[in-house]
Amino acid sequence: MENVFNRIRNHHLHDRIVSAEQAASWISNGMTLGLSGFTRAGDAKAVPMALVERARNEKMKVNVYTGASLGSDIDRLFAEVGLLNKRLPFQADPTMRKKINQGDFYFVDQHLSKTSEMVRGQVLQPIDFAIVEAIAITEDNMIIPSTSVGNSMVFAAHAKSIIVEINLAQPQLLEGLHDLYEPEKQGDRSPIPITKVDDRIGTLGIPVDMAKVRGIVFTNQTDSPSTVTAPDIDTNTIAQHLIAFLRGEVQEGRLTNRLAPLQSGIGSVSNAVLHGLIDSEFTDLEVYSEVLQDAVFELMDAGKVRFASCCSITLSGSKMERVFPNLDQYRDKLVLRPQEISNHPEVIRRMGLIAINTALEFDIYGNVNSTHVLGTQMMNGIGGSGDFARNSRISIFVTKSTAKDGNISSIVPFVSHVDHTEHDVDVVVTEQGYADLRGLAPRERAELIIERCAHPMYREQLMDYYKEALTRGGQTPHVLEKALSWHTNFAQSGTMLQKVLQSV
Amino acid sequence: MENVFNRIRNHHLHDRIVSAEQAASWISNGMTLGLSGFTRAGDAKAVPMALVERARNEKMKVNVYTGASLGSDIDRLFAEVGLLNKRLPFQADPTMRKKINQGDFYFVDQHLSKTSEMVRGQVLQPIDFAIVEAIAITEDNMIIPSTSVGNSMVFAAHAKSIIVEINLAQPQLLEGLHDLYEPEKQGDRSPIPITKVDDRIGTLGIPVDMAKVRGIVFTNQTDSPSTVTAPDIDTNTIAQHLIAFLRGEVQEGRLTNRLAPLQSGIGSVSNAVLHGLIDSEFTDLEVYSEVLQDAVFELMDAGKVRFASCCSITLSGSKMERVFPNLDQYRDKLVLRPQEISNHPEVIRRMGLIAINTALEFDIYGNVNSTHVLGTQMMNGIGGSGDFARNSRISIFVTKSTAKDGNISSIVPFVSHVDHTEHDVDVVVTEQGYADLRGLAPRERAELIIERCAHPMYREQLMDYYKEALTRGGQTPHVLEKALSWHTNFAQSGTMLQKVLQSV
Repeated sequence: MENVFNRIRNHHLHDRIVSAEQAASWISNGMTLGLSGFTRAGDAKAVPMALVERARNEKMKVNVYTGASLGSDIDRLFAEVGLLNKRLPFQADPTMRKKINQGDFYFVDQHLSKTSEMVRGQVLQPIDFAIVEAIAITEDNMIIPSTSVGNSMVFAAHAKSIIVEINLAQPQLLEGLHDLYEPEKQGDRSPIPITKVDDRIGTLGIPVDMAKVRGIVFTNQTDSPSTVTAPDIDTNTIAQHLIAFLRGEVQEGRLTNRLAPLQSGIGSVSNAVLHGLIDSEFTDLEVYSEVLQDAVFELMDAGKVRFASCCSITLSGSKMERVFPNLDQYRDKLVLRPQEISNHPEVIRRMGLIAINTALEFDIYGNVNSTHVLGTQMMNGIGGSGDFARNSRISIFVTKSTAKDGNISSIVPFVSHVDHTEHDVDVVVTEQGYADLRGLAPRERAELIIERCAHPMYREQLMDYYKEALTRGGQTPHVLEKALSWHTNFAQSGTMLQKVLQSV
Repeated sequence: MENVFNRIRNHHLHDRIVSAEQAASWISNGMTLGLSGFTRAGDAKAVPMALVERARNEKMKVNVYTGASLGSDIDRLFAEVGLLNKRLPFQADPTMRKKINQGDFYFVDQHLSKTSEMVRGQVLQPIDFAIVEAIAITEDNMIIPSTSVGNSMVFAAHAKSIIVEINLAQPQLLEGLHDLYEPEKQGDRSPIPITKVDDRIGTLGIPVDMAKVRGIVFTNQTDSPSTVTAPDIDTNTIAQHLIAFLRGEVQEGRLTNRLAPLQSGIGSVSNAVLHGLIDSEFTDLEVYSEVLQDAVFELMDAGKVRFASCCSITLSGSKMERVFPNLDQYRDKLVLRPQEISNHPEVIRRMGLIAINTALEFDIYGNVNSTHVLGTQMMNGIGGSGDFARNSRISIFVTKSTAKDGNISSIVPFVSHVDHTEHDVDVVVTEQGYADLRGLAPRERAELIIERCAHPMYREQLMDYYKEALTRGGQTPHVLEKALSWHTNFAQSGTMLQKVLQSV
């Protein structure tokens, strides 16, 4: 009971406490749900799980909108039990991915800053229930989110009803770290008043109309730990090339050793690259990103990062154990914002971020595929990479130069799917080196990319393609009938490598 | 002499008056020039022409940065005499296009809001001379631009020296219509304080350090008239479909009859589509665009457009004769801004524009090619379409469903070049109809696009491709080995139409 009073401080709401099963029973076939959760952090856990149990015995479909990917196996189970009609704007679960690629349900892959505009603008299906994880509800009716903010604020504002999951396993020390701000509707909107990463512009929680809060569920389950793998030789080398590039920017006088606010995408490569900054000369750094992974806390602990703004904290199990009980140490160095604000073009452009995102593949002209394997199979989604790449000061994409034991070259003549056009790609980095593409025409880009970034075993093959393309001419020379042949070769023969293909 | 005193109001500058030839003589091989001019309007004319004359007898190469395309045959002549090393960020001249596609010089195709950031951030080659057309220099050392602002402000601020061309043929009534604002450098920047299309946030001219003004040249030559063609049956039908879509938005309560600030790309189709609004129920409209073409003035004259913000006014000859002597009529309805501001993501997103741009082709999933014919040959450049499409409230792309007498389908399985990814394309419109793609997954998009937008003679062929692609599966199903076959078929046989190909 102490927890009840402590966690639901408007005592008029105590009669709204229900079980997860009871809350899930309100959801009916055809409804649309807006769930908290961003890259495995702060997801509503109990009600979705109770819904999964219902769906095992009952034919029902719902639309599920989230912040980004969910943890706690929810995305996997949603996909497995066939509960989904439509899912947006991002996921990262292998089972869900498989079902998406089979066409079992619709997946809408969106820029993560944009879902909120579509909800606010009433373009998407209206949300019946927002189901939002929290650490508390305050006396003045604010929901205090947990380890992520995601789209919870806009979902709560626009849903017909709200279910709050108060998770006792989440660190209560998170309270005070959030900064909740919702832009007015387009056309009546003021500038978003963030000019520095540590600016606070909103409230400590999500102000809600408590008449809409239909139920409050207590839970006690930690977030799923992140799945990032440790840095390896290749990612360390990528980090070193990136540092060499940044060092050059400092030497040219375009940056100082404080660099510019850093954004880094989700995943092992991005995490490893950030980690690589620990031993660099750069200092007093700032982060303005979606997700904080382990590396940012390591950089803070090493005194390298002064302040980090995010919309989600996604840590490995051991890092959770280290960070969460000690959040007071980070209190003046952290803020969690809605993903609309962490990823907002206006703020990204104003502050001039250095954006580091991961490519699946890029082509000799600098177009990037970050989502579709062989142009067709969805991996995770574009996430926030578009928000950052388009609007940053320097848009960097990193990847290992090969995959599948060298049978895939990450540098191809023509990407099989475009998420980021050459206009939005300033620097590409592999373990082979970096290519600074700023101010370069396509013909200049091609030679540099092949020479600096491609794996040696693919360089000649890429140059052969490029030379043949040059005979055809054009601003962006291509041999169209061969442009996608590397991908079809891999699909048919398991390798892109010409020498192997010829010997087969 | 009256003109001299009237046009150069800081009389200390009178001794800087030189001939165009003299000014051109200061330019040497290897230099970088920043020229005024945006879509044929407000280009520096005399000095570039004198430079062309020099280049006929002298081996020299320069880099030329502009606002957008130049008129007065300058782009053609620059290309013909082989003066260029690098040209950015946009062009639209047939001869220049041909030389670009031959690889005779480097063309860097950029988002038009971004060149300024790269100049300010010292990423591009430093500018030796800014050559800027003006109608006057004020007592307090401001350059008053003419029919476009383009990148003149940032060029003047960052060039080592400035040459001003005072053009007596430009309407002096333009003075007072400009609003010059340069954002601070990234990281030290305040919000851009525009919240409404008619907000004025800057000065009436470009404030410059007069020590940098090396020469002032008098000229007397009107802008090249625009090359837009009159609306035809197809563009009228496109306009009607677009109006039907917008009417639906009003019926759904997402817009009112005042719509939202409109942006419309350069060219005949965009102009015709805007023109189509004259007979619509929409009223009290606002425009926030790059270029104002004839249609916007027709809409103002018809009492349909309340206010129009732009960075350039590009009119047909007859419209120039009608508008320019009567600019006083438009004084409270017009503002000219730097292209960085007219195209700024921050402002576009805040105000929630309706963006209408032209596609060369789009694919069954909604990816748009707006620049490269058959994936290789540059047409004009991406221009501002990316600035607007990414950040607008509703991103609309229009095109006729076929080209080359029906031998090209503008709707293809896989675009041969991507300028705008499916994430940035909300609505596609052809003379066949419109497809509202918002909130739709790729598989939903494909059927709608084929059914609503493709020409009937290509529908079955597109459905055949899509059905075969479905057998391969994926979030975005494709038959990779056939994905670009429509383009290669056209290149080889002059048509994309299967029935004709089979009969050959």
